[in-house]
Amino acid sequence: MTVKLVVLYTHPDDPDAFDHYYFDTHVPLVNVIPGLLRAETGRLVAAADGGEHTYFRAAELYFADQAALQAGFGSEEGKATAADYQKIAPHGSRMFVQAVDD
Amino acid sequence: MTVKLVVLYTHPDDPDAFDHYYFDTHVPLVNVIPGLLRAETGRLVAAADGGEHTYFRAAELYFADQAALQAGFGSEEGKATAADYQKIAPHGSRMFVQAVDD
Repeated sequence: MTVKLVVLYTHPDDPDAFDHYYFDTHVPLVNVIPGLLRAETGRLVAAADGGEHTYFRAAELYFADQAALQAGFGSEEGKATAADYQKIAPHGSRMFVQAVDD
Repeated sequence: MTVKLVVLYTHPDDPDAFDHYYFDTHVPLVNVIPGLLRAETGRLVAAADGGEHTYFRAAELYFADQAALQAGFGSEEGKATAADYQKIAPHGSRMFVQAVDD
């Protein structure tokens, strides 16, 4: 069963500087994680429920299954990505594993 | 620019009963929303950051652009879906609009 890592970034102090670093430095680290099938990202532009606009950006990293995800983040490339995430993720950012229903 | 409605359901009292209703009743309502390009859903099986396992299930509904999303939810089918969401979404569930970076 396909799984994805779902990352929810809270609002950075400087959104444009965040995105500049994100696309120039973080995404290239993500793209070489072994086993990564697909990645998708985008800004959360509105809270459709009228509640708090909690998150600034979301990213989803797809892997064939949970073992592939774990192997990916156990690799040097995965560790480099995780270390960079720790550097850039604003306080309150979240990260979940989702089992995608096919 | 492709947009998606991102729905994050918090934990229901009875997860299996929730999913039974979700797939038997809610998903068929979603699938007939005019302009819907694609829908994806899945259980959030773990908090990868070691934090609170806040959400039970996520769903993403893709539309060609923001106008298509608004038209979709302005339709009778969209309104029926939104009404059903109000009926099933556990307290604290969230809904965001995401602009997907192509």
